[in-house]
Amino acid sequence: MTAGHAAPDDPAPQRRKRRQFTRRQQVLDTAARMFFERGYEATTTQDIGAELGLLKGSVYYYISSKQDLLFEIVQEYHQDTRAYFERILASDRTPIEKLRELITTETAHTATNLTRSSLFYTEWRSLDPDRQQTIIAERARHERAVESWIREAQAAGDVRPDTDPRLATFAIFGMVNSVYRWFRPDGRRTAEEVGAEFTELVLSGLSTR
Amino acid sequence: MTAGHAAPDDPAPQRRKRRQFTRRQQVLDTAARMFFERGYEATTTQDIGAELGLLKGSVYYYISSKQDLLFEIVQEYHQDTRAYFERILASDRTPIEKLRELITTETAHTATNLTRSSLFYTEWRSLDPDRQQTIIAERARHERAVESWIREAQAAGDVRPDTDPRLATFAIFGMVNSVYRWFRPDGRRTAEEVGAEFTELVLSGLSTR
Repeated sequence: MTAGHAAPDDPAPQRRKRRQFTRRQQVLDTAARMFFERGYEATTTQDIGAELGLLKGSVYYYISSKQDLLFEIVQEYHQDTRAYFERILASDRTPIEKLRELITTETAHTATNLTRSSLFYTEWRSLDPDRQQTIIAERARHERAVESWIREAQAAGDVRPDTDPRLATFAIFGMVNSVYRWFRPDGRRTAEEVGAEFTELVLSGLSTR
Repeated sequence: MTAGHAAPDDPAPQRRKRRQFTRRQQVLDTAARMFFERGYEATTTQDIGAELGLLKGSVYYYISSKQDLLFEIVQEYHQDTRAYFERILASDRTPIEKLRELITTETAHTATNLTRSSLFYTEWRSLDPDRQQTIIAERARHERAVESWIREAQAAGDVRPDTDPRLATFAIFGMVNSVYRWFRPDGRRTAEEVGAEFTELVLSGLSTR
């Protein structure tokens, strides 16, 4: 399969674009699964090409480098995260409601995207330092937001005055981000139930009730 | 330096034993620091020997293999954990008090032993599967104990009846085990303060108050 040359039975540009998009997604999904199952180091670009049934010569049309694939997979994971984060940030809810929404959504998101979230945490160090920085900066925004919501809720009298908002933020992300370690899609609880339970634990823990 | 041959100025057996013990500890501490700073894969046995000032021929007297060193470092970390766990388990405190003691101690322990706790979490996959199993089995005992304390406290009416003890256990360990990611010895809070804050967050979160 090669790109850029129009054959007589070439589909309409729209359709071709859609097909390329689907193909790209297949490449990313296959790479994510293989990195997850065998580890990033142990998986070669040729392994991924073979799994996709690509001819030897076409592999590099789809895969520039293993490192790029890993970064794209991790970025894809963070794109969803960014989407709900921005939505919650822009909403006119109270700080406590924002906190509730973020913990619930982020826990369920981590559990639902198990392959990608595991990859992100276990293969983190395989990313170039520059790319690590890109992601660290983005995650720092979420942490600052959560910390400021806790602080605002504290000022409003809804969160215990003796709570340290920064430590509570670390506790929340530590809890939420570790879900990939033990969650199984065929387990006793759904991703949503875990999200609800963790949210309740944190909010009761912070509450002045 | 060779072992097994008594030189005329050989120290008393006791003193020699003590010196060997100190030397072993130096080897482990140096290896732990180097694995932590450069990563396990990137550090060679010869690097560790050179850092310790060992002659090329003596390295293998002190270091059988890199893998053995990593396992010994991780085991050393877990030996302390085991000590306080058994103490708490054998005490006649209430389930809530045991929970409080374990969360406080384990959080502070993770923060205080930053090099070893980081190594444990980041280089986990470099251990042989058999050795991983040894440690998994040990940690599973802690998890089961915490879960049963929550369950007992729930039966006594001290923990919210709608809490899922197993999910709460995962939440607790997720929180406590992630401390190595962000804690810095020269930071704003001491290891003990973090332990106290995390404990308060969890116990308030579970409480029926």
